[in-house]
Amino acid sequence: MGKLKVACFAVSIDGFGAGPNQSLENPLGEGGLQLHEWAFATESFQNTHGTGGGTTGNDDDFVKKGFENMGAWIMGRNMFGPIRGPWPNDDWKGWWGDNPPYHTPAFILTNHARAPIKMAGGTTFHFVTEGIEAALALAQEAAGELDIRLGGGVSTIRQYLQAGLIDEIHLVVSPVLLGRGEALFTNLDLAALGYRCTQRVPGEKATHFLIEKP
Amino acid sequence: MGKLKVACFAVSIDGFGAGPNQSLENPLGEGGLQLHEWAFATESFQNTHGTGGGTTGNDDDFVKKGFENMGAWIMGRNMFGPIRGPWPNDDWKGWWGDNPPYHTPAFILTNHARAPIKMAGGTTFHFVTEGIEAALALAQEAAGELDIRLGGGVSTIRQYLQAGLIDEIHLVVSPVLLGRGEALFTNLDLAALGYRCTQRVPGEKATHFLIEKP
Repeated sequence: MGKLKVACFAVSIDGFGAGPNQSLENPLGEGGLQLHEWAFATESFQNTHGTGGGTTGNDDDFVKKGFENMGAWIMGRNMFGPIRGPWPNDDWKGWWGDNPPYHTPAFILTNHARAPIKMAGGTTFHFVTEGIEAALALAQEAAGELDIRLGGGVSTIRQYLQAGLIDEIHLVVSPVLLGRGEALFTNLDLAALGYRCTQRVPGEKATHFLIEKP
Repeated sequence: MGKLKVACFAVSIDGFGAGPNQSLENPLGEGGLQLHEWAFATESFQNTHGTGGGTTGNDDDFVKKGFENMGAWIMGRNMFGPIRGPWPNDDWKGWWGDNPPYHTPAFILTNHARAPIKMAGGTTFHFVTEGIEAALALAQEAAGELDIRLGGGVSTIRQYLQAGLIDEIHLVVSPVLLGRGEALFTNLDLAALGYRCTQRVPGEKATHFLIEKP
């Protein structure tokens, strides 16, 4: 069976994984885009979402690696979109246009059931209302021998960490202070949960840490 | 007038500047020594406290720079020693032996008055019971045109940050998870206080950030 992995998850120096007040205009919260500037600058990101060009090096290698060997994705509803509460209609299909960058089944954690959405390029969004273990079981079935990537947001990752279900986190510390937002580490004792930092890799615009249960 | 600077202040990836349960055996709290391994490895540290040898490079440059142009130090009582409450006697003279590495007047924040202690090498410990602004005024008078270095611990730095009195922080993120201990950032909105990260420098064993009010 594959591993459950968090990859390219960026926090500020002061530990925020998103800014405050997420909205349609600010999907990552106020100031949250700054967390990801290291990724936006890379060749891999620019090839997929941008205009081409972009940098190569450690930052780019990590972006690429985050998509390798993935057989399914899991993400929280706040990563899928800004809508809260019941779905008003079926219009919202994620932030990513017709051909999302996942190219696998993607399981969205939500309290509000919705029919699956088949997108171009191999991504199908499935809506899971039975909780994080149920989503993981579905993702494992879909992924087979491949790994599963757990996207954001912060509260989704915190839930999976607290349940001890994550095998590996590639955490990125971006050189920015947010001051407010969604704190990743507060009241979460990662050391007691068995996690250790096993690697530090300086990138061009941010610092990469590998966190695992040895 | 010189600046009030924090230098070489290390936190874990999860934002702890010291481990839990500080004691005579664990001056930096349980697991806290790991935060400073980047510094222990350097030539500057080994020349002062160790057996010689040690590494050169960015980590070493920052250790050196942290002692340059300093005319006074301020530190919290927990950095000075493990004793809490009234001083039982005059025996405790810091962790550093007869010749502490400060070589300037050093102002210790405490609620319990005590006579100054003149050490070898130019360090004199002064005990200040009138609070952080009073300590800063005394340090400014002592330092003249030189800078003042604010040591730890975490709660001392947090008090000076909240009061907006710190001009520059050289923060170090060490590749370790502590899980528990003294959190530097919790409920402290550095962005709102006007601080920005102006520089990131990868070191050999840790990552260095310069935080200033531009």
